[in-house]
Formats: sequence, structure tokens, C-alpha cells
Amino acid sequence: MLRLGKEFKIIQQYFEQQQNLSENIVLGIGDDCALFAPSEGMLQAISIDTSVVNRHFPEDADPFDIAYRSLNIALSDLAAMGATAKTFTLALSLPRFNAEFLERFSKGLFTAANNAGAVLIGGDTTRGPLSITVQVQGDVAEKNTWQRSGAKVGDTIYVSGNVGDAAAGLDAYQKKKNEEALLTAYLRPEPEFAVVSQLSNKAISSCIDISDGLLADLAHILRKSGVGAEIDCDKLPLSDVLLSYCSREQALQYALTGGDDYKLLLTSSEAIDGLYAIGIIAQEPALRILNQPDTINITTSGYDHFNE
Amino acid sequence: MLRLGKEFKIIQQYFEQQQNLSENIVLGIGDDCALFAPSEGMLQAISIDTSVVNRHFPEDADPFDIAYRSLNIALSDLAAMGATAKTFTLALSLPRFNAEFLERFSKGLFTAANNAGAVLIGGDTTRGPLSITVQVQGDVAEKNTWQRSGAKVGDTIYVSGNVGDAAAGLDAYQKKKNEEALLTAYLRPEPEFAVVSQLSNKAISSCIDISDGLLADLAHILRKSGVGAEIDCDKLPLSDVLLSYCSREQALQYALTGGDDYKLLLTSSEAIDGLYAIGIIAQEPALRILNQPDTINITTSGYDHFNE
Repeated sequence: MLRLGKEFKIIQQYFEQQQNLSENIVLGIGDDCALFAPSEGMLQAISIDTSVVNRHFPEDADPFDIAYRSLNIALSDLAAMGATAKTFTLALSLPRFNAEFLERFSKGLFTAANNAGAVLIGGDTTRGPLSITVQVQGDVAEKNTWQRSGAKVGDTIYVSGNVGDAAAGLDAYQKKKNEEALLTAYLRPEPEFAVVSQLSNKAISSCIDISDGLLADLAHILRKSGVGAEIDCDKLPLSDVLLSYCSREQALQYALTGGDDYKLLLTSSEAIDGLYAIGIIAQEPALRILNQPDTINITTSGYDHFNE
Repeated sequence: MLRLGKEFKIIQQYFEQQQNLSENIVLGIGDDCALFAPSEGMLQAISIDTSVVNRHFPEDADPFDIAYRSLNIALSDLAAMGATAKTFTLALSLPRFNAEFLERFSKGLFTAANNAGAVLIGGDTTRGPLSITVQVQGDVAEKNTWQRSGAKVGDTIYVSGNVGDAAAGLDAYQKKKNEEALLTAYLRPEPEFAVVSQLSNKAISSCIDISDGLLADLAHILRKSGVGAEIDCDKLPLSDVLLSYCSREQALQYALTGGDDYKLLLTSSEAIDGLYAIGIIAQEPALRILNQPDTINITTSGYDHFNE
């Protein structure tokens, strides 16, 4: 993976040995491969995510946020599986060498990495349009994987926190409005590892992280589980800052179809404190939405990279 | 990782369940993460590689070759660590939905994957300039990892096969010459897993795959091992087809500085049949090249994505 010259210096200066290697990591950055000793008795959860300029983040965003966000949305997939983070790799395409960019980018990257306890074990840098691909690896006990396919009729549907803030934050960013809390929700999403740890003894029947929008992501669970659902708009957790930014109708639109929140959407037959119950899993394979304002356009739900 | 609509169909039609899952793979494509049960007592070797259009492959290349090459050069890093391939993930950026491209691309991808016994366990598709990031995972015994740092004074330096053909193949491709063997060397490099298997009982002190050029890649071993080397141009294995394509001087230039061959460059204190001994590891931290024609320009050795 390493090469000579400037590319070598980029890796050495900005990415190599910024973190302490755990005992699991036999060999980190700088050889043909990293070498990792998997945790005994645990499954390894693996996910890969690409963030492309002007598609997943704005061109003029702070490189700290670009890195922080790119890593955190990848780590969020581990949380959605009920896993804890262990390691990650980074494939970075840059239009040109830019020390200032790399300084901020690596700061954002390692801030997010250290928050999650994830260690960078390898990578590849190349010249091209700005694009960040992160692969994350985590541990999860075999009997406690939160797959999309396990939702059962009668299960309660939960979200782990406020929804809609990130979509409003994107709107605020585009309109250059100084809405700090909403901008942070969009630019610096957090993977919900605290929720994973809090629910380690609960029977979670299915889970997904909300990246494409609550309805679109719930639809994934319903399809994989072969069930339907009923959710109640009046039960969606909407933040005060969101409700002061826009009308309740617009807030619900953001919450249902906006995406980018990276809260967890879970189902369980148990009552769970600290989460928000927003509906129930039903037998009929359809999605019913209660207390839905007429103005909401749910046909726009979900983001598809190839349908625009 | 999955999303609705066309992106979902791309994944389902071209990438999902094209291969049989091994018993190690608890969950493949289609959830937030893949779930993998690591092999007991083995280390996991991990490497990530990005191939960008017009940088790592020509824009007008057959999509079969683009995929075949992108996966094989990533798998080559596993071979360079002495590992065998197990799984891989794919992050694919495409400018637009293109059924014909995806048909050929997925054929090339799974041809290479099945040759190596590597199973696709996850991915991400997004719209953007054509770019392919592949992460590969493999198994290697802890006592038998071929790291770059282990070369010892007196070790013999070996290459696993002909060098220079790929660089000549790139030249032939650019000049639209019908040189099938050379074009194949460039467009369809093969990871050297047969060599890994053949050498499983040998003491290999260091190894790297030749991607940037023999001299540049040897320099990585020398730097990591804190040693020098002497190699002999007269001992470099050059194919007949290369020597009929260009002068011996040009062939040596391709062999020493051209890159893209993906043969293994190894060191060992043992005599090894079937490999080509090209030199010896020396104490003085320098690289001496014997029988070098005056015309060779070794200052151009090695490819750097940020120095052009």
C-alpha cells in the first residue's frame, strides 16, 4: 500500500502511528497488509462506505468535518449491527497534495476514531476527485447480532434519538443560516455506540441506522423481515431547535424522509427505557402512518444514488 | 449499505449472491454489516486498494478487465503477505447507471474472485467518477507472515516470474499495438497465490508484490529491513515476447522501473526452486545494480500519485 515520495510522506506525516495499536493489531500501516488477531468467540462485523464530494458532503465543508462525518457514518453501520468498533481502513482520493487540507482532515479523522476506539490499520491514497472510502471492522457476539431480518409481529418500533435535525441542518447549510445545533447534526453525526452498550442485555429483534430516511430505512427492515408496520407521527421525537427552525409539517417531512440522522431504528418485544417508541410491527406487509399531515410527500422518501 | 430503487437493483442483480458463502460467512451482502467468523488460530490479513479511471486503468478498457484487474491487484497484497484470500468488499463509484458496463464488470469481478476463492461479502455503490475500491481479507499463520521488515544480510533476492511485461503491455495498449501476451500481462495481472502455496514450508524473510516497479518495491524492503542489496540485470527473468517487442535496454528499463507486474519479490536464506534469484541482501544500506546498461534511467523508478 505504501509508495515512495510525496504519497509516502502524506501517509507517514498524517496517518501513520497517530494511535496506539491494541494487542489485537499485530501489524498496522506500512506493509502489504495489516495483520489482525480476531477476538476469540466473537463474530467480525464488516462494512464499507464511500463519501463523494458534492454528493455526500459539500465541496466547501471543513476537511475536519468531511473526515469526521465519513468515518462516523461508516462506524454507524457497526452500531446498527450491535457491534463495537475495532479497526478501520481508509482509501483517500485527493485532487492534489494540500497540506492544510490533510492537517484538518487527519484531525477530524482521528477525533472520530478515538471517540469510537477504532484504530486505523491501513489505507491507500491516490490522486483523483475527492472521495473517501472507509471500511470498518467490529466485534459482535454471535447470539446478539442486530440483523434487519428479525422484526416480529407485535414488536415495538423504537428510535434512539431526535430525527429530522440533520436534514434541517443540510437545508441551513445550503441557505448559509447560522443554526449551530442543526449544522452539527448534519456535519458531525455520531454513531450510537452508547445505545449499543446500553442495550447489550436486551432482545433486539432488528436494527438499522437512519441514513436514507426513517421511512426508507424502516422499509428495509420490513422487506427483510416479511412484515408490515404502523408508526405514529405524534410519537416521533422532534427537537425544540428543529421545531423553532421550521413548521411542524416541515419538521415531520425532514424526520420521515430526510435521512442523515444516523440514529438507530430498532424493534424489540421488550419495553426499553431511554428510547422513543414510535410504532409497532404488523402482520400486513404495508407501512401505515398515523397522524400524518396532508402536506407530507412520502413519495420522495429515501435517497437513491442512481435515481435523480 | 443497501438502498432503495436503482441502486438496490444494481446490487441485487449484479453483485448479490453470485457466489456460495463459505461456512465462515455468517451474513453476506444486504444488511448494515457482513458478519464473518474468523478462522481459529489464524491472523487476518487486510488490505485496501483504489483504482481510479485514467490513473490506474484506461477509460476505454473493457469493464471485465477493469474489475478483474482492480480485484487482482488488491488480492496481490494478500499473496505478498503469504496469506490466502477469504473475503472482499467493493466500493464502486459509477458516473451513471449502465447495464452493459455492469454486466461485463461483474463478470470480470467474479471470475477473478472465484479464481482466488474470495467471496464478496459487502459493498457500497454511489454515483461519481468511475472508481473502484476493493478491500480484501485473508488468512495467514502467525509464524509465517511475509513482512517487508525481515530481510537479512546474505539472503538471496528472488522474483516469482517475468518482469517488465506489464509495463510493455501498457505501452502497447497506448500505441494500440496488437501484442496479446503483453496486453494480458498489463490488463489481467494475477495474484501469486500458487507461489504462496508452493512456499508454505520455506523460510521467507521478506516479501512485497511488484506494483510500483522492481527497484521502488525492493527499496521498501531495504528501508523497512535496514539493509542494502545488490541485484544483477543479467539475472532478471525477461520473457521472449518482451525481448521481441523492444530492445534489451528498454526491456530492462521496463523490468526495473515499470511496475504493474504483480510478481512477488522475496528474500530467503534458503535455495528455492522455481523462483528466479536476482541478487543478494547486503549490509551497506544502498542498492547496487550490476550489469546495468548506461541507457537506463533509474531516477524515474517508482510511481508516486502526487509527484507528476
